[in-house]
Amino acid sequence: MPPIRSANINVMDQAARKAARHLIRDFGEVEQLQVSIKGPGDFVSAADRKAEKILRDELSRARPNFGFLLEESGEVPSKDGHRWIIDPLDGTTNFLHGIPHFAISIGLEWRGELIAGLVYDPLKDETFVAEKGAGAFLNERRLRVSKRSELSRSMIGTGIPVLDWPGREKGFAAQLERVSDKVAGLRRLGTASLDLAYVAAGRFDGFWEYGLKPWDIAAGIILIREAGGMVSHLEGEQPWSDPGTLVVANADLHTQLTRLLSP
Amino acid sequence: MPPIRSANINVMDQAARKAARHLIRDFGEVEQLQVSIKGPGDFVSAADRKAEKILRDELSRARPNFGFLLEESGEVPSKDGHRWIIDPLDGTTNFLHGIPHFAISIGLEWRGELIAGLVYDPLKDETFVAEKGAGAFLNERRLRVSKRSELSRSMIGTGIPVLDWPGREKGFAAQLERVSDKVAGLRRLGTASLDLAYVAAGRFDGFWEYGLKPWDIAAGIILIREAGGMVSHLEGEQPWSDPGTLVVANADLHTQLTRLLSP
Repeated sequence: MPPIRSANINVMDQAARKAARHLIRDFGEVEQLQVSIKGPGDFVSAADRKAEKILRDELSRARPNFGFLLEESGEVPSKDGHRWIIDPLDGTTNFLHGIPHFAISIGLEWRGELIAGLVYDPLKDETFVAEKGAGAFLNERRLRVSKRSELSRSMIGTGIPVLDWPGREKGFAAQLERVSDKVAGLRRLGTASLDLAYVAAGRFDGFWEYGLKPWDIAAGIILIREAGGMVSHLEGEQPWSDPGTLVVANADLHTQLTRLLSP
Repeated sequence: MPPIRSANINVMDQAARKAARHLIRDFGEVEQLQVSIKGPGDFVSAADRKAEKILRDELSRARPNFGFLLEESGEVPSKDGHRWIIDPLDGTTNFLHGIPHFAISIGLEWRGELIAGLVYDPLKDETFVAEKGAGAFLNERRLRVSKRSELSRSMIGTGIPVLDWPGREKGFAAQLERVSDKVAGLRRLGTASLDLAYVAAGRFDGFWEYGLKPWDIAAGIILIREAGGMVSHLEGEQPWSDPGTLVVANADLHTQLTRLLSP
């Protein structure tokens, strides 16, 4: 249970834990399905939708007036200005391949502004939560972005575009080469909400990725802000949920990383 | 406890579990040290050496005639042709930054040939073991490399060279661009012994990295062979422990991946 005991955080935490129990069970099944030629693709889509339905049912019951933006089933209008922004299974490709690194991401907006977020990693039982003005936490521990100011000692996360994934045409290969030349480590873990949570926790010193969706980043952005980090788009000032290249880091590294990534 | 109950596997398993208890405790400390400006570098070096000493003491006591090749303290000659090849903390950079993904890797050679291996992920409590002719296992489950034969559905792991890391000058950026254009996912998790174990488990469909050391790969190579996978060097036929670009996958993908990686 996170130390922020606000009613909204408790509601998110309970919903996430309920959905996670199903995801963990389904993840166990996926390992068995690897051996089939067809692969577990349809099974994973069903697991994703089932987790989303649990989250939607739980959150609707607790907060009947709140709207939704859901990865799988789109928008539900809000009656009072609040809106949940949900990825029920972030890291679907990891999940599909049996890689034990995925998460549930729940953000909460009020009139377009992020006011709370939760990222839950069920396999490690790590709950990252933040609420506007109340700070960011991992389980019981207050989170702060890292204090490293030298790129050469920094661990940076990113997304690597594959096939027709967005970003290839945006010069990702050149960005990666410029960044890898300067930093102590680059990681591609495959779950954006956890990448952002890891920046909030100081595990990553920075992160960038092109083409993320609102449900990938809503919770992560408020985590980083509440942990003292910087969040921006490489393309210039714009609302948090607009498409583009998200760049996050502590204040020192944010300037350096942005410069390195700029064409 | 792994289902292969041979005496050597039991010895490796017990030594790894004892060393892992110390690593887990030290990993908890690292999270607190992130906030210091100096950083936890010296502390992590000490944790690495302590884990190596435990492994060496435990394995020496059980097998006094076996030699060692150790990441931290070099070689100890064998009296009977057996040699342990050990990385006490693979994924040191992850460990240093508080990223919960690292492993203990123990390989066993007899007269230069790999005959057994164990990779232990203490945080997930996953023990990957293999013994020549007896198969590869994750905890209680028999492992097989994946059956995927299409690159476009494959998940591939790699290492991304940073700073003056080996491989930059070998055309890694071009390799990455060619591979990312063809595959369903690319991951850089930062712990080579687990990358190889994940290929054995079918989580990754393939993996390549330049410049790995014998202690990074000894256990992983026998895991992959015993799970039915292919192991080779991009530079041509050579002993498993020679430097170069290691390429591993199932038989179908190994040919395709090798072709894609070749200059």
